[in-house]
Amino acid sequence: MTSEETTFRFKVEVVLKNGVLDPQGEAIKQSININRLGNVLEAKQGKLFELSVSSKNIEYAIKDVEKICSDLLTNSVIEDYKYYEVSE
Amino acid sequence: MTSEETTFRFKVEVVLKNGVLDPQGEAIKQSININRLGNVLEAKQGKLFELSVSSKNIEYAIKDVEKICSDLLTNSVIEDYKYYEVSE
Repeated sequence: MTSEETTFRFKVEVVLKNGVLDPQGEAIKQSININRLGNVLEAKQGKLFELSVSSKNIEYAIKDVEKICSDLLTNSVIEDYKYYEVSE
Repeated sequence: MTSEETTFRFKVEVVLKNGVLDPQGEAIKQSININRLGNVLEAKQGKLFELSVSSKNIEYAIKDVEKICSDLLTNSVIEDYKYYEVSE
């Protein structure tokens, strides 16, 4: 991190594509309904990542995050990703 | 689901509390930096849940989600949760 770089924080959400079997979500749904915690029609589980990226400017930071998502965090065959900058 | 019930959609974010060791996040950070995908100072991994809750009104739905989070989705010793309604 050189002195001209700023830190940007991002949240990345990775979820299974529609139609991909989600046994974990199904188990959570059943567990909720069996334990009478609520009437849940659908439950899906995904992954959440918080990244602090050091970069010259926001454009470069977004480029980096895009690359991190597609190359490392997501299996593009079965998963979709979405990211957004967070301020805090 | 009776005819008077509406479906509300929520997202739940479960993250490790500050100070709790996050080896998975650490591994992701190292992997990003070793593979030169970006200059990442910190990476944390959490869990994401999408719930469709059928309830009489939003107040009851929030009560259900609160209970689901604290009783089932979160280990309160090491994790914090946060939820919000989503429209789509």
